[in-house]
Amino acid sequence: MNAPVNFDKLEVGFDVPAVPGMDEADIQTPCLVLDLDALERNIKKMGDYAKAHGMRHRVHGKMHKSVDVAKLQERLGGAVGVCCQKVSEAEVFVRGGIKDVLVSNQVRDPRKIDRLAQLPKLGSRIIVCVDDVDNVAELSAAAQKHRTTLEVFVEIDCGAGRCGVTTSQDVVAIAKAIDAAPGLKFTGIQAYQGAMQHLDSYEARKEKLDIAIEMVDSAVKALTSVGLEPELVSGGGTGSYYFESNSGVYNELQCGSYAFMDADYGRILDKDGKRIDQGEWENSFFILTQVMSHAKADKAICDAGLKAQSVDSGLPVIYGRDDVKYIKCSDEHGVIEDTKGVLKVGEKVRLIPGHCDPTANVHDWYVGVRNGKVETVWPVSARGKAY
Amino acid sequence: MNAPVNFDKLEVGFDVPAVPGMDEADIQTPCLVLDLDALERNIKKMGDYAKAHGMRHRVHGKMHKSVDVAKLQERLGGAVGVCCQKVSEAEVFVRGGIKDVLVSNQVRDPRKIDRLAQLPKLGSRIIVCVDDVDNVAELSAAAQKHRTTLEVFVEIDCGAGRCGVTTSQDVVAIAKAIDAAPGLKFTGIQAYQGAMQHLDSYEARKEKLDIAIEMVDSAVKALTSVGLEPELVSGGGTGSYYFESNSGVYNELQCGSYAFMDADYGRILDKDGKRIDQGEWENSFFILTQVMSHAKADKAICDAGLKAQSVDSGLPVIYGRDDVKYIKCSDEHGVIEDTKGVLKVGEKVRLIPGHCDPTANVHDWYVGVRNGKVETVWPVSARGKAY
Repeated sequence: MNAPVNFDKLEVGFDVPAVPGMDEADIQTPCLVLDLDALERNIKKMGDYAKAHGMRHRVHGKMHKSVDVAKLQERLGGAVGVCCQKVSEAEVFVRGGIKDVLVSNQVRDPRKIDRLAQLPKLGSRIIVCVDDVDNVAELSAAAQKHRTTLEVFVEIDCGAGRCGVTTSQDVVAIAKAIDAAPGLKFTGIQAYQGAMQHLDSYEARKEKLDIAIEMVDSAVKALTSVGLEPELVSGGGTGSYYFESNSGVYNELQCGSYAFMDADYGRILDKDGKRIDQGEWENSFFILTQVMSHAKADKAICDAGLKAQSVDSGLPVIYGRDDVKYIKCSDEHGVIEDTKGVLKVGEKVRLIPGHCDPTANVHDWYVGVRNGKVETVWPVSARGKAY
Repeated sequence: MNAPVNFDKLEVGFDVPAVPGMDEADIQTPCLVLDLDALERNIKKMGDYAKAHGMRHRVHGKMHKSVDVAKLQERLGGAVGVCCQKVSEAEVFVRGGIKDVLVSNQVRDPRKIDRLAQLPKLGSRIIVCVDDVDNVAELSAAAQKHRTTLEVFVEIDCGAGRCGVTTSQDVVAIAKAIDAAPGLKFTGIQAYQGAMQHLDSYEARKEKLDIAIEMVDSAVKALTSVGLEPELVSGGGTGSYYFESNSGVYNELQCGSYAFMDADYGRILDKDGKRIDQGEWENSFFILTQVMSHAKADKAICDAGLKAQSVDSGLPVIYGRDDVKYIKCSDEHGVIEDTKGVLKVGEKVRLIPGHCDPTANVHDWYVGVRNGKVETVWPVSARGKAY
């Protein structure tokens, strides 16, 4: 995972869509392309913001599933480590050399708990979330078995409506159980408001986040009153990080999508009513696709369909073009409306995917480009690691 | 690709969700599970149908992307080979030992054409589709360069609205060009009506297919009149194969989804108005998922979200349960409405995915089960092979 890719052993086309040094025009499509300049600017910008606001930035690794991108975020953005959602992802990041890994999720399967409890042996700090007191005993038993320490966050559901407890009493009860459990350390609170991140209006997002901050503030006070002041209070995404950073309650961010951007996030508005992909962040993440048929005069058929992206958050947008529009997606084909017939067979265009996370997950490789040349080809290290 | 998987080198959890011999209860989730009994019955049934109707059955490999499933279809269902949509998929199937491979799509990129033209050297028959006379010269040059023969279908757009020509004149013009081109052989017609396969009503599907059959019949007559009678006329899917089989025009089927079934196909009706997943075909393909949180009394949160499936054709359906319902899908979580609180944390349920093809594509492994035991663990051989 951590070893450099040996391109001598890989065949362009069959194994990889491109190799370093190749012209961008020769990349085999469809594949993921990263604009390295834009990516680096996004990473540096968020890192500077977090630093200026005294926040730790634990970047969300589930977004890109890439050890290489995570290390770039550590190097250029001062990231303190990653969060991810699955034990198999944590295994990839730990083996890849990331030293502070949070599984921002519940782990309940006995085998998964056993796998998780072994990870600290590889030299990384491991934190996991809990929302049920029964889980505490399971994690404690596994940590004791492997003579390791698992750090634990209590997860608060501050509006996402998924996992997490909703009262300060429950937070305190679980934190006490963690604190009393051998092999475990109570480290803090997980409070990510996922549902509000994609609301277009800044004010609507602020309203939801204010509720979250109030819940978290109450929980922190309740914990402090029983001598369990949390070391870390973690949360925040690309649509909300300024709220958490200025809350006085949170001290760790978990942003992911800011680095890549996507069509769905790009549409949300900043406090001045401007789309966040028009100033705040740059699109650095694209699906490169090629026109393979133009047998109908008004339609160009491209090679990026459902196997090259997830359309859960809408269709992709063609980057930098107003004259053509991606209008339909089937398994292997994308239909591009091209009423003026401006696209030629063989021509390549960049798509901004609707949703970056599940789109990255269907690919094996990131092709990093700069100045028209392929500079890096990185594996999507934790691709398919859902278990 | 063709070598048996060496499970001694693979770690359960990190590398594979399960190993042969394991109890079904111990499989790491989320992952794909195949009910081998149901799969074998589906494959045998379609094979028997094709044989009884004098049809070749070229199974659609883009659905499962698995050399192992394709070989089961050859062995139990008399399949003559596969079709697939991408050169990288064809490379996987050819290297996996499939001897008759159709790329049922246009190939226009120079590097892809070069890759394709080398495949016959590995001992397989290779067929590709063309809908533009300019493509004929490109394919011919590559076949001559590699001293191979590429067989070619002219693609007719008989209603899908994507690739393909729409008039018999165009079919004849392209077929003549193929026939005259060194290194190429004109073999037949590709005419797959993809758009109608998912129409619920049998009569509505028949109406669309009647149009397709008429178009194909005209093209065959026009070709025959110029001495270019097609050897193969290929098409047909799970929602239409009986129409092509009884057309007197088609002689090759291309069904894929019948083997696995999914929620979207399952809803279409047979000629008696009965859902096709209630008699015609069985669900053999599932996402196994585990409940990981039940912190809200009325909601069970499971571990299969957008990274475990494609929701382009709707949310998954929980198999064999009327008391609980999958109602929401986010990146890593599925929300199951469980108003009676019948599901327990740690419990596993099977999901029928909305759409089998792009769901298989996000996974690395098929776990084949029979009688509660894991019998086979097969790689999704062409997973991620989109280029």
